[in-house]
Amino acid sequence: MADPVESNPSHYTVVFENERVRVLEYRDAPGDRTTPHSHPDTVMVTMSGFDRRLSVGDQVREVSLEPGLAAWLPAQTHAGENIGSTETHVMFIELKEPGPASAEPTLGPQTD
Amino acid sequence: MADPVESNPSHYTVVFENERVRVLEYRDAPGDRTTPHSHPDTVMVTMSGFDRRLSVGDQVREVSLEPGLAAWLPAQTHAGENIGSTETHVMFIELKEPGPASAEPTLGPQTD
Repeated sequence: MADPVESNPSHYTVVFENERVRVLEYRDAPGDRTTPHSHPDTVMVTMSGFDRRLSVGDQVREVSLEPGLAAWLPAQTHAGENIGSTETHVMFIELKEPGPASAEPTLGPQTD
Repeated sequence: MADPVESNPSHYTVVFENERVRVLEYRDAPGDRTTPHSHPDTVMVTMSGFDRRLSVGDQVREVSLEPGLAAWLPAQTHAGENIGSTETHVMFIELKEPGPASAEPTLGPQTD
C-alpha cells in the first residue's frame, strides 16, 4: 500500500532516516483528511493534542490523544481525518526491521 | 553499564514497552546531573529546547537542541548535565533489536 510520504506529501515529511528507522513529521489542520496509506510498526509521539477519525474499509474508529504521549501504532493501513478543533502535530518513528507478525489487523494506536 | 531507569530513576521513566521498543521519558531542571548510564540505539524526540553537557571519561561535548526535533542517539555510555536555563523534556525511543555495530564510539546525538 501507499507510503504516506508519497500519497500525502502535504502532511507527512521525512525528518530523519538511517538503516534502522525513518522518522516522519505529520501536521494538519481541523478538517484535513488523508488518503489511504500504510505504516510499518511505529512509535507515535504526540506533539499536540487532537481528535481523529481513522478508517479502513468499513471499519471506523475515533481517537482523542493528549500531547506528550508515546503510543504504539502496529503495522496497518488506514485513512485519517482531523475531526477536532486543534492542529495535529505528531512524530512517527517507523521501525525498518521486520517484526513479529501481528495476530490481528489493527486500526489506530494502542491506547490502553 | 547502567540502565538509566535504574541509575537515574528521578529523571528517566518507562512510558511504554513491548518486544521491539522501550520508550523513556526524561525530565530535568537547570543544574541537574545524571550519573553514567548507557543507551542502546535510540531516537530522541525533544519536547523542549535545552542546553546540555555530555561526558564519558575525559571526553566532553556540549549540545543545544531545539524543541520538536528527532535526533539519532547511537548506542553509547555517558553522563549529562543541564547547563542551560530551561527544563529538559525528551522522549527516548530505544530499539531493542540488535543493530549493526557502530564504527566508532559516539558521544551525544547526531546533529548534522
